[in-house]
Amino acid sequence: MPHLNRTHDPSRRSWVESANTGTTDFPIQNLPFGVFSTGGGSLRVGTAIGDYILDLAAIETAGLVRPAGEATVFAADRLNPFMALPQSVWLATRARLSELLDRDNATLRDDTDLRHRALIPMADATLHLPFFVRSYTDFYASKEHATNVGSMFRDPDNALLPNWLHLPIGYNGRASTVVVSGTEIPRPHGQLKSPANDRPRFAPCEKLDIELELGAVVGTPSPMGTRVSTADAYDMIFGYVLLNDWSARDIQVWEYQPLGPFQSKAFATTISPWVVTREALEPYRVNTPERLQPLLPYLEESDPNNFDLDLEVELTAGSGAPVTITRTNYRHMYYSAAQQLAHHTSSGCAMCTGDLLGSGTISGPTKDSFGSLLELTWNGRDPLTVPGGQRVFLEDSDSVSIKGWCDGGRHRIGFGDCAGRIVS
Amino acid sequence: MPHLNRTHDPSRRSWVESANTGTTDFPIQNLPFGVFSTGGGSLRVGTAIGDYILDLAAIETAGLVRPAGEATVFAADRLNPFMALPQSVWLATRARLSELLDRDNATLRDDTDLRHRALIPMADATLHLPFFVRSYTDFYASKEHATNVGSMFRDPDNALLPNWLHLPIGYNGRASTVVVSGTEIPRPHGQLKSPANDRPRFAPCEKLDIELELGAVVGTPSPMGTRVSTADAYDMIFGYVLLNDWSARDIQVWEYQPLGPFQSKAFATTISPWVVTREALEPYRVNTPERLQPLLPYLEESDPNNFDLDLEVELTAGSGAPVTITRTNYRHMYYSAAQQLAHHTSSGCAMCTGDLLGSGTISGPTKDSFGSLLELTWNGRDPLTVPGGQRVFLEDSDSVSIKGWCDGGRHRIGFGDCAGRIVS
Repeated sequence: MPHLNRTHDPSRRSWVESANTGTTDFPIQNLPFGVFSTGGGSLRVGTAIGDYILDLAAIETAGLVRPAGEATVFAADRLNPFMALPQSVWLATRARLSELLDRDNATLRDDTDLRHRALIPMADATLHLPFFVRSYTDFYASKEHATNVGSMFRDPDNALLPNWLHLPIGYNGRASTVVVSGTEIPRPHGQLKSPANDRPRFAPCEKLDIELELGAVVGTPSPMGTRVSTADAYDMIFGYVLLNDWSARDIQVWEYQPLGPFQSKAFATTISPWVVTREALEPYRVNTPERLQPLLPYLEESDPNNFDLDLEVELTAGSGAPVTITRTNYRHMYYSAAQQLAHHTSSGCAMCTGDLLGSGTISGPTKDSFGSLLELTWNGRDPLTVPGGQRVFLEDSDSVSIKGWCDGGRHRIGFGDCAGRIVS
Repeated sequence: MPHLNRTHDPSRRSWVESANTGTTDFPIQNLPFGVFSTGGGSLRVGTAIGDYILDLAAIETAGLVRPAGEATVFAADRLNPFMALPQSVWLATRARLSELLDRDNATLRDDTDLRHRALIPMADATLHLPFFVRSYTDFYASKEHATNVGSMFRDPDNALLPNWLHLPIGYNGRASTVVVSGTEIPRPHGQLKSPANDRPRFAPCEKLDIELELGAVVGTPSPMGTRVSTADAYDMIFGYVLLNDWSARDIQVWEYQPLGPFQSKAFATTISPWVVTREALEPYRVNTPERLQPLLPYLEESDPNNFDLDLEVELTAGSGAPVTITRTNYRHMYYSAAQQLAHHTSSGCAMCTGDLLGSGTISGPTKDSFGSLLELTWNGRDPLTVPGGQRVFLEDSDSVSIKGWCDGGRHRIGFGDCAGRIVS
């Protein structure tokens, strides 16, 4: 049951004119949070508005927003202190920022001095990892993806394992290598073993892949020994980022039994620099797909907890022109982030501010909507023809960029870029 | 090639008489680091000496040790700031503490006022989680354990999977629920599915188990994109703790395919309160067992990187008397912590100060040396008869305590207790 308020009003316009184009990722209805710096200066929290960043540390110091009362949370190199505040503070801060940026509000608009200090052209800023990733968990919630992988590597007639329709399968990922969009991705080395050889060799990965995902960012923690309902889990999530779970398929196939992926996923995970708040996505809530098996009560949800969120992946092969290689939508995911988070606490596992939950590869029902090269090329059987050559997996100097947005008709709620380039 | 110095001298005695008994875990040759508080006061770093804790914040303030120069690192609620200092500082600090506690050194011994402030009876102190666990990785390095599990759940004739002899199998664990010895362990809930039923049910775990492990604590970080040799990996490790990787076998068997253990391990992991430094273990270095297959060069080691470290597990069934249910030794492990850490960086994965690497269940070659109830009871076939009743897995109110020490003849290098009690 989406609950909408003035911050969602599609007729609201900003005095920052580039926020009103209808094509920007960052209209006044979005107001995502990120961390930036300028000219090698200190890191601080900002919100994106059109082509600008509003420096929240500057307006906190000026007293225009005070989410933590006397304490400051925006003169920080991470969103965690702000995300650790109660949900009511997230919402009040969003409402206040929406007001301050409203075309009809003079407070900041007409304060020339403060406005010049606080409104930074995004082109002049460096964007940083927006939050300290306390832990990173990756799920496997697309039925289409799990079916494709199961068909390729196990048995096409029993592609989905028996547990898949009963629980959101997930595993712990590696938090230390979650990096912000734009960070170069060194090609990983690892143990590779082809069926033709008796023994593995140590070499650069030859099957370097992407995984198109959405990441949910936990704001509100839950203590050890506590189970959380899907409704409460939905409310614990501060916001969402685009996520590319870079994967070394040849390392993975040799190492993953019996304890799951390890070094094949540990070398890098890229996220977009802006955390789009759960509140900004409120108008785009949709139900998860129809259940093929009834879920246990702790996983049931009475509200629509998925989002109608368009996604696409652009590949730039070497010096070729960028080309979109897949288009899909987050609404296809069988398990919502709220269900994944509820399951994550089902054993009593403690959740922390800054925990990142990857959705799992987002693959749609058709071949042009698959979320990995593994699926798009069917493990190399069907190479992609792209400007600059053919591709099965990624070569050095290739770049990949994920984009995502909710379509609001007269505006869109976008995530900015989630991009990385492979270096040797 | 162990390198020994005066801090290892077995003839050294302390003016803290309880350190000289020969049976204490904490002689002057040990000097492990931990975090403690007294009377609800602030947390600070200490070293264990006999029945006492030397308050390192107090002697840092007094200027007797200054590992970070002008800055302080011991008036902290975690070891991380100290562990992030260079290895040379760890060694110099250990040498200085050994001097200050030496029977013949008057500096602290005869400063009655400071000694009264800085030497705290351990019985009066509360011990806390000694470091912020940045990430927790769990390995699977006992050939006996992997063979036992493979025999029970897969195929006794092919119990070891083909990759096992070529790489240290590991997976990412959950850092948020690593707790200090003495913390009560709530019995986890989860999805359980018996072969007789079509569908899972959600219920308290019925097969709650232990895993006897040693944890390696990373001090020196390594950046993303860097591979580390086994020799450098050995040097990055600040020290070791005892570790109990509590496991819900019934949750595990249903959830673990294809991405590995998740909620079955996420509810709790207990570590001992004292980090025994790598330097204190130097005299006990031994080689890993003979290789059954040659290793790839990046995993080879020229030095003995295992330790001759005795381990035992004591079970207290309800209100019964404690009984030792297994005795084994860390030297049986097929892969050393240095090999595991080198492998962890093989993809370019970044390592951080405070990363915790579990060895994997330490099982010896005989049934009375297995490191889990799963193996000791052969998945329930052979219940244990203990004071207070029979046990297959843990019942509510049962307690488990791991103890470990290196036997130096006239003294032992002990870890203190790694204990937990199951609550419903």
